[in-house]
Amino acid sequence: MDQTNTKPVSKTNAGNFFEDYRVGQVIRHAVPRTATEGDRALYTALYPSRFALHSSDEFAKASGLARGPLDDLIGFHIVFGKTVPDISLNAVANLGYAECRFLAPVHPGDTLTSVSEVIGLKENSNGASGVVWVRTTGHNQTGAPVLTYVRWVMVRKRDRAAPAPETVIPKLAPAVTAGDLVVPEGLDFSTYDFELAGAPHRWSDYAVGERIDHVDRVTIEEAEHMMATRLWQNTSKVHFDATLREDGKRLIYGGHVISLARALSFNGLANAQIIAAINAGAHANPCFAGTTVRAWSEVLDAAETANPSVGALRLRLVATTAETEPFVLRDDEKRYLKGVLLDLDYWALIPK
Amino acid sequence: MDQTNTKPVSKTNAGNFFEDYRVGQVIRHAVPRTATEGDRALYTALYPSRFALHSSDEFAKASGLARGPLDDLIGFHIVFGKTVPDISLNAVANLGYAECRFLAPVHPGDTLTSVSEVIGLKENSNGASGVVWVRTTGHNQTGAPVLTYVRWVMVRKRDRAAPAPETVIPKLAPAVTAGDLVVPEGLDFSTYDFELAGAPHRWSDYAVGERIDHVDRVTIEEAEHMMATRLWQNTSKVHFDATLREDGKRLIYGGHVISLARALSFNGLANAQIIAAINAGAHANPCFAGTTVRAWSEVLDAAETANPSVGALRLRLVATTAETEPFVLRDDEKRYLKGVLLDLDYWALIPK
Amino acid sequence: MDQTNTKPVSKTNAGNFFEDYRVGQVIRHAVPRTATEGDRALYTALYPSRFALHSSDEFAKASGLARGPLDDLIGFHIVFGKTVPDISLNAVANLGYAECRFLAPVHPGDTLTSVSEVIGLKENSNGASGVVWVRTTGHNQTGAPVLTYVRWVMVRKRDRAAPAPETVIPKLAPAVTAGDLVVPEGLDFSTYDFELAGAPHRWSDYAVGERIDHVDRVTIEEAEHMMATRLWQNTSKVHFDATLREDGKRLIYGGHVISLARALSFNGLANAQIIAAINAGAHANPCFAGTTVRAWSEVLDAAETANPSVGALRLRLVATTAETEPFVLRDDEKRYLKGVLLDLDYWALIPK
Repeated sequence: MDQTNTKPVSKTNAGNFFEDYRVGQVIRHAVPRTATEGDRALYTALYPSRFALHSSDEFAKASGLARGPLDDLIGFHIVFGKTVPDISLNAVANLGYAECRFLAPVHPGDTLTSVSEVIGLKENSNGASGVVWVRTTGHNQTGAPVLTYVRWVMVRKRDRAAPAPETVIPKLAPAVTAGDLVVPEGLDFSTYDFELAGAPHRWSDYAVGERIDHVDRVTIEEAEHMMATRLWQNTSKVHFDATLREDGKRLIYGGHVISLARALSFNGLANAQIIAAINAGAHANPCFAGTTVRAWSEVLDAAETANPSVGALRLRLVATTAETEPFVLRDDEKRYLKGVLLDLDYWALIPK
Repeated sequence: MDQTNTKPVSKTNAGNFFEDYRVGQVIRHAVPRTATEGDRALYTALYPSRFALHSSDEFAKASGLARGPLDDLIGFHIVFGKTVPDISLNAVANLGYAECRFLAPVHPGDTLTSVSEVIGLKENSNGASGVVWVRTTGHNQTGAPVLTYVRWVMVRKRDRAAPAPETVIPKLAPAVTAGDLVVPEGLDFSTYDFELAGAPHRWSDYAVGERIDHVDRVTIEEAEHMMATRLWQNTSKVHFDATLREDGKRLIYGGHVISLARALSFNGLANAQIIAAINAGAHANPCFAGTTVRAWSEVLDAAETANPSVGALRLRLVATTAETEPFVLRDDEKRYLKGVLLDLDYWALIPK
Repeated sequence: MDQTNTKPVSKTNAGNFFEDYRVGQVIRHAVPRTATEGDRALYTALYPSRFALHSSDEFAKASGLARGPLDDLIGFHIVFGKTVPDISLNAVANLGYAECRFLAPVHPGDTLTSVSEVIGLKENSNGASGVVWVRTTGHNQTGAPVLTYVRWVMVRKRDRAAPAPETVIPKLAPAVTAGDLVVPEGLDFSTYDFELAGAPHRWSDYAVGERIDHVDRVTIEEAEHMMATRLWQNTSKVHFDATLREDGKRLIYGGHVISLARALSFNGLANAQIIAAINAGAHANPCFAGTTVRAWSEVLDAAETANPSVGALRLRLVATTAETEPFVLRDDEKRYLKGVLLDLDYWALIPK
């Protein structure tokens, strides 16, 4: 043993600061994670999720799939969770998502990894922080990409005196083009059992501009959002440590609200089985335990896909507090109402 | 796109009201659900369950079964959960159960569906609600029935002016006859390992009239009962929404109390491995988070089965608050004591 | 039916009292338990665990293992849980652990049983209780031992007048000898992917005497520690029953704090993948829900193993409250500080 006590407190991850990023930099994130039937059960226990394709292996097989996939958001949360230690440990705010496409279903037994490329940087005028854009892709154990998305976050600088990088603002699509939506291989909704799925409404029953109040409400507990967030191995301290904020509150992971709202949307969108893309997303206000959450949707667009049995709906999914009236997002000054928690713009696949 | 904004807020499930039911009506419930090892793990985490047949695949195989079944109540809760959107979304009260028989074990990988037939209707004299009796059967993916039961609920009318249906009150057996109990195929308790199962008491050690205080107590948390209830995809709003009742409380799903009491009964009934039937059940008083629950049992009857290694015990299982003395159910006016939460009458299978 | 009501309230387990134990006595514990993927998912949800070998089946295979093992502490908690009804139901205090060795990985599908031998007894001078030493071994379904440990607890006497047994104090090793550490069969860290595992630090990067503050903190909820403790089928009443203690608090299972601290230690010890032995452990102070827990480690020793790609680090892992400064264990009178919850001494395996 020739080891000596040289550097105490040196082996923990301090995360990256704004000046650590360079456009073009590729970050291979730790830790690979095998998804299992246990994740499916916990997802069902944590969110009031009932979409038939993910609830029933038999329904998935009857829809042409080789086996039952996990909820699309399980893949999203796992891939996202891996990026936290490298991207958002020193983040001030999670600013947005864009160009998220789901490329292949995730099944129990699949092992997921994440890799991110820095595609944009812009230092803030205050010199204390900056915005970092990354494109993150999740792969399964065969190397096939399962999903990809762009996210941008405001990250603190370690040293205010560090020079500002050249500003690069990536050009992001306002929405994924319908033609770029991936319909899972083999999916066939031509013999879809609407009664078993829980509602009679098919693609053509939804009108652009239509709004749906999803009616049901769920009050969130600390144990639930922490279990969910740990399940995705998301290590962001603010979700777990009641001593971190002055008010003693633990901020709920935005993805928890996404999953909750999506599950609530079953009541009105029961056949919108698959999330094919996320066009944009804003966590409009922070959410804390004790909040009772409700959700509403608006049909933003509708499109055909290359698969004649499958249509696509572009949906706005909004989560709010129970006290907030549905269908209103912003005040007179175009600011999100205080009770709005999530404003998500996504494409769903639904039987034609 | 020839879609136009015609009918906002029209696609959510309003549930059925009393006048929507007709005797003979068959309702095929959404959504099929595949049970998995994840359900087994969550069941173990949510209830202090230790029955060897469900805890150990090896114990199940040594008992003649091809593989380890899930706890009988997992099947019950899943089958029950599917009926909620069609039967009890507008229920005022869950009045009772009868003629529940467990027909085949549920294994990880099985996909369950539920179907109900309306077998009775009786409008209340107030004209505002009525009682609906349904016989619900759960099937697995092979089409084999796994369990069946009758339940009756009081359901609101949508319109008080709707005419009352002809009253039909089904004739229900006070208890499942011992000869109608189904012993799982292959079950053989002739080489049963009592030491490994946790207690030496076999069928002949229990006397009719014997009462057992199960000693252990569990305090219930909000996160636990909500996770359990969601796991069974039970969508009844009152379990999840703290803004629904004036007192801000979330009512705990009665099945959560059944599972908790049954798990507590291990301490005194460790070898009563299988629930073969539920003869009757009453949720005597509502249960809320923060309650500390205890349980006691009374042996109501004992019977042989066609299987020489397996006996049956008819048991009353009572769950109460911690403050309620065991072995007393009712006050002088024959009303359940305030501290009584559950009064369940069931048949269990136990080694002879 | 020739049964009569003879002995009410006689079938529950009262547990063993001090005078029930004899040196040499072997206790075969109930109930066997099959571990599954559901346990892995729940472990991930309950603890911020990210060790790659247990997170990813692919990482395990790339490390030479036939398939992905469960976290070593899952095996420990299951084996420990089975002993509670026989060993510590009437315990006043859990005094310590020694000579714990992990002998074989536990995989999903394995069924575990526990057996204990009483190896020491010493009545306390007060005549009301005594110390019992047991050596517990867990086996899988093939009969192979998976782990073994010595634990000693202070147990109440049923009858103060019962004669004291001859005092036998077992001679316990202060630590497991490095040469006795079992490296899992096939393990090969020679092509270990440090980037994917989450940190660059290998065996030779750690110095004896080095201390690491693991930085992250977690606030514990009642639902979480109860779900964890039930998952291991640990029936100790004090963890579940809020009516048991005068202060209305539920004591958190010591193993919950061990798992939490071990998971927190990932941040600084990400490559210390495997727990090979526990040399000693003290639950220095009780822990209750609401506590925010942090952890620090000290490198006590380093050793080679017979496997050239695998080194061993002997680590002190200390869990404290958030308010307690790291790296200080005791006050001037050598008593643990009030904020110290756990002082664990273990061997971990890490790539060389």
